This record gives sequence, structure tokens and C-alpha cells, in this order.
Amino acid sequence: MAILLYELVGADPHRPFSPHVWKIALSLAHKGLDFATSPVPFTSVPAVEGGFSKTVPVIRDGDELVSESFDIALYLDRAYPDRPSLFGGAGVLAMARFVERWSQLTVHPYLGGAALMDIHDCLAPADQAYFRTSREARYGGRRLEEVAAGREAGLAAWRASLEPLRNMLTYQPFIGGAGPLYPDYIVAGAFQWVRVVSPYPFLAADDPVKAWFERCLDLHGGLMRKVPAAT
Amino acid sequence: MAILLYELVGADPHRPFSPHVWKIALSLAHKGLDFATSPVPFTSVPAVEGGFSKTVPVIRDGDELVSESFDIALYLDRAYPDRPSLFGGAGVLAMARFVERWSQLTVHPYLGGAALMDIHDCLAPADQAYFRTSREARYGGRRLEEVAAGREAGLAAWRASLEPLRNMLTYQPFIGGAGPLYPDYIVAGAFQWVRVVSPYPFLAADDPVKAWFERCLDLHGGLMRKVPAAT
Repeated sequence: MAILLYELVGADPHRPFSPHVWKIALSLAHKGLDFATSPVPFTSVPAVEGGFSKTVPVIRDGDELVSESFDIALYLDRAYPDRPSLFGGAGVLAMARFVERWSQLTVHPYLGGAALMDIHDCLAPADQAYFRTSREARYGGRRLEEVAAGREAGLAAWRASLEPLRNMLTYQPFIGGAGPLYPDYIVAGAFQWVRVVSPYPFLAADDPVKAWFERCLDLHGGLMRKVPAAT
Repeated sequence: MAILLYELVGADPHRPFSPHVWKIALSLAHKGLDFATSPVPFTSVPAVEGGFSKTVPVIRDGDELVSESFDIALYLDRAYPDRPSLFGGAGVLAMARFVERWSQLTVHPYLGGAALMDIHDCLAPADQAYFRTSREARYGGRRLEEVAAGREAGLAAWRASLEPLRNMLTYQPFIGGAGPLYPDYIVAGAFQWVRVVSPYPFLAADDPVKAWFERCLDLHGGLMRKVPAAT
């Protein structure tokens, strides 16, 4: 039986956008595992599998339920050791933990703020109300429109902050080396998130990080390209 | 014949402090290679080996001269493949490149500013003059005293920015895994730099990063402890 992946969507159930869910979709494809998806809008996440997790991704694999993207990746490597590994070895696992926190601290905060109105605008009305209330609380009561207005001013510093990734990618095509591993999916998930919700050119056309993301878009039969970029 | 390592010093030739030189001292010890050191104050760096490099570290290994810490580490692994590797494999090499840029962008800028007067004060007079002129130019003409005065205000944000490292170290004792590898020396070099020049408590006593650095201080017969901490 195929693994079931619960994925976050807005008004259009065919445009999943959660960066963390994309990490797992890519991971399932990497391991060559069959999976089906179940679209979940923000306000339905608490009902997934009887309230199993406050967030998606959640996967159901037979009787097993697993949440939290990193834990799911570890589960997949443990449960399917004969399939291509997501980590390759202890060195890449350590790198993955580092890249995961780096991505959350460096890549996500700017993108999350800059794409705030884009995300809002792709949601159904009930989810828009939830999104506005929860996010405005998270941003200390500032209005979504106000937070998103910092997009232009923050762009250059954010692009500069990608330098550790950019530098590494001048030496090798993927974070994982010659081919992609879970650390690639961690960061690719973030770029796919904004690709699906926003037409804004977050990455400069000549950025080696952009070239790497294009390579990621080609992976696994163009899995991420199946959702066309926002226009 | 022992490898010769040129190392940066202030007025006291027994207190080398360059973070990049410490990376290489640790690397030479890691590989079990005999090395001698040649102390060089700032104003003498351009004369090292007839002007071979604008910066230290520089190593002389027989007829070979190598500069730039990362290049030296690669050289050592290439030249002495039968000694313990600094990288272990391609995964750690990639991680090392990432950590190197992360350290330069995240760990160094705050420390470099915060320890500016400490560094200045440990230099001989001629080097103090050079240091003031070159660093004040680098900081857009601001006086050293003014830059260093931001130390207290920047401390909390800087400690928070170490989160990727802190998180990884909750899972394993060293960045390299069960034992140290070159990525450990990259970051340890930065902390040794400020340990040698400044009594300021950059790391909180209960920070897992501090516990890791203490483990690094114990490495290779306590190599870094041979220079007592600044008081």
C-alpha cells in the first residue's frame, strides 16, 4: 500500500506549498517509494489522523504515523534501508542537522515575511482569517501587509546570507555531492514554497544557488515542476 | 624535517592568536605531523618567505610553500594520505566548505568587532598603528573604540546565531561526529582567537557550544591550552 502524505494547500488542492512537506515529497521520490497525497488546508491540519500532529507533513505508512520532516526522513531511511539513503552516512546526517537549523534561521525568516501576502492570497477565505490572526500574532501584532512590505529592503542582505550554500555549490552540483541528499531537499523545499506561491524573483538569474535549484526542479521526473510556478 | 608554521603574534611571541593559524596548528596535530612555529607580528607578514602571501597561515613543508588555511588543510590530506584524514570523505569536505563560509559570515564578524580593542592592546606599538589604520578603514572610518563598544549590545543575537552548531552538538560530541575533523578546527580557531586575546565571556557557561569548545581545548595533548586564556 502506498505511503500517504498529508500536504498543506490553499484554495487550489493541486498547489501544495509547505516547504516542510516538499522536503518529504522529494525524500519519498528519492527512495523510490510509492506515495499518495492528501491535501489539507491550514484549518484542517488539527484534524489530520485524529489530531496526531499540530503541523504537516504527516505520513501514514501502514500502521505507522510519523510527523516532523526531519523525523520522517530518519524514519524512511530506517524503515527502507535497502532503498537509496537520504543521508549516506554519519557525516551527511550531521551536515543535515546543521543545514536544517541554518535554513530555518537564515533562509526561512526572510522568505516567510516576504511571501506573506502571496501565501495569504492563495488561501481559501476561512484559512485566510486563520492565517492573518496567527501570523500577525507571530509578528508582534504587525499587519501582514506591513511585514511583507519589507521584501525589497531585505532582499540584498538575504541573498548575501546564502553565501555558505553558494560557496559550497561552486565546488559540487549538490549539497549532497555528486547527487542530491536530504540536505538538498531541506533547502529546495524552501525555494519551492515561494516558487509555488509567489512570482517574486527571490534568486538572481545568475546566482549559482538558482542554478542548483533548477537542478533540483529536474529531479525525480521533475516532481516539483508538476506544480507550475506562480505567475 | 618538521613543517614550519608561520603564526601571527602580538607583543608576546608565545601567544599566537590568529584563528586561521590555529585551524592549521590543530590540523597538523590531528595528522600527527611534527611542526615548528615561527612567530610573525602583523607588520612582518608581508615579508614572510619573501612575500609569498599577504596573510598567515603559511606553511613550509620542505620545498613546498602553501598559504590560506583551507588550502593548507587540503594540501596536508593530499600530501599525507596515510595519516588521519582531516575530512574523512566527500560529505565532510562539503560540510567543511559550508561551515567555513558560515563561520566567516556568522561567527567572525561579531567576534572581530567585539575583540577589537583586546587585539589592539596585545600588539607591539608598530603593529598597533598598522592595526588601527587598516581596521578603522575596514569599518568605514569608525574608531576601534566605537566598534568594540557594540560588544554588549550584540552578544545575545550572536549567541542565538550559533544555533545550527548548538543543535548539531546536542546529537554528537564533535562537528566531525564521534571525533573532531577539520570543520571542528574551523570553528575552534575562532573561539581560541578570542580566548587568547580577551577575558570577555563570549559563550555562556551552560552553552553546549562552550562544552564542545572545552572538548576541543583538550585535544592533541591540550594544544590550545598551552596558551593560557587572557585574564
